[in-house]
Amino acid sequence: MKPLKKITIIGVGFMGGSLALALLKAYPNIFICGYARNKASLLKLSRLKFLDCIEEDLERAVKDSDIIILSLPIYAIISHLEKIAPFLKKGAIVFDMGSSKELIERAAHKYLPKDVNFVGCHPLCGSEKSGARFAQGNLYKGALCVITSPRHHTATKIVKCLWQKLGCKVIFMPSKEHDRVLSLVSHLNHVISFCITQNLKKECLSFILPSLKDLTRLSGSPASVWADIFISNKKNLSRDIKKFIKVLEKVEKMIAGAKINALARFIEKVNQKQALLN
Amino acid sequence: MKPLKKITIIGVGFMGGSLALALLKAYPNIFICGYARNKASLLKLSRLKFLDCIEEDLERAVKDSDIIILSLPIYAIISHLEKIAPFLKKGAIVFDMGSSKELIERAAHKYLPKDVNFVGCHPLCGSEKSGARFAQGNLYKGALCVITSPRHHTATKIVKCLWQKLGCKVIFMPSKEHDRVLSLVSHLNHVISFCITQNLKKECLSFILPSLKDLTRLSGSPASVWADIFISNKKNLSRDIKKFIKVLEKVEKMIAGAKINALARFIEKVNQKQALLN
Repeated sequence: MKPLKKITIIGVGFMGGSLALALLKAYPNIFICGYARNKASLLKLSRLKFLDCIEEDLERAVKDSDIIILSLPIYAIISHLEKIAPFLKKGAIVFDMGSSKELIERAAHKYLPKDVNFVGCHPLCGSEKSGARFAQGNLYKGALCVITSPRHHTATKIVKCLWQKLGCKVIFMPSKEHDRVLSLVSHLNHVISFCITQNLKKECLSFILPSLKDLTRLSGSPASVWADIFISNKKNLSRDIKKFIKVLEKVEKMIAGAKINALARFIEKVNQKQALLN
Repeated sequence: MKPLKKITIIGVGFMGGSLALALLKAYPNIFICGYARNKASLLKLSRLKFLDCIEEDLERAVKDSDIIILSLPIYAIISHLEKIAPFLKKGAIVFDMGSSKELIERAAHKYLPKDVNFVGCHPLCGSEKSGARFAQGNLYKGALCVITSPRHHTATKIVKCLWQKLGCKVIFMPSKEHDRVLSLVSHLNHVISFCITQNLKKECLSFILPSLKDLTRLSGSPASVWADIFISNKKNLSRDIKKFIKVLEKVEKMIAGAKINALARFIEKVNQKQALLN
């Protein structure tokens, strides 16, 4: 196998910027190139000095690159798969970091040339913050990274090694299953947090208890990222929201009907389940 | 005004135990007595050495006490208001720390003798943990404490000073308003957290992301405390759960209908509101 010499990151925000920092440290000899979508972004990235080069031209950014990383909102990943397709060198590896995987995987198969390898990735870390200026070089250390491409492919193995070198624990899962699980453990919770904040009245603002802070923190997550995630996983998510509403309705009935024993039993069962989460 | 010489805490769990520790430090000369409901509790409390005396007999516990503090689940506060009533000395102050206030206030007016002063209190701090062994002497430091009794009464002023001495910021609010606000900023969020955990499948247990931990932490809160809170504030809480479900349904419709622009605008508005919570 030829050594990796150039990696391109398309989308140098919080996740992409953190990845750039981590790659610089793990692979000091690889040329790390970032693609800036506009002058403003170019200027910001130049100041941060994360990258060996910043390109405003997509073709120049991905040309001769061994690995191209798409760190963008879901639908921007999909459109960039089509945009970069003509410029990729034979044998290049493209991977993404999107939070839903089925649509992206389908787009990769549709748009990328046969002699380019696609690997679907989702490192399970992040922040409600956005922007490269918040980038953290150790963001990926200790994180779980799901790979949705077949584990025996050479490209998958290379990408797996990369994530492991950054400190991730890699697990494999088909994209369909990934989207089903992530809907429940992540996407639904973001929906709930957005709705909790939406539901608060102004008079509540002086009563921001630690518990409320915990539950509303995610509602600071950026619209540009999360609207895409929700819509791209809409079947799973819509079903999970409806199921969650059913549980809420059940509890509301117990409360309205003053069924204190049933309610206490429900909470005790939940307590036992919660103990498993720690 | 005569100096305070004896304070009795009925219910020495996490909240009551933390209060005992804080009082011992703030009032080293006051005799702090705890009431243990049974032998097991007596034994546990003896080991912890929080108190100047531990009584198994309710009459002896509250007899000659200047201040009697009820730190129990809501309905146990109500039943103990009735139980202690015959044993209270003239001019004694009784205050509680319950998380809903209207029912307790009504019970105090019903059961306590006219020559005893009741002050409704709710220090806004706590933990999903329970039990005196987790007690923290600095739990009340910096916390908000709501007092629901009229601020000009002498007894209210004494209790206000006590909370301030423990480091609380005291605010006044009628019990009806307290219960309305707390439903939204605390009780609803506990309901939601219990429902999130209930809704998780076993296969999700290996995907406990930090965001999910934040949202499920409260679901470890004890049934003995929270079933009472929910039922005692059932009118407000039932209304707030239903309103929250309406918001969820609205978001679910946007997602199922792939209304990405509407969804993005919704999230952006929520982001602005969330920024006010910090």
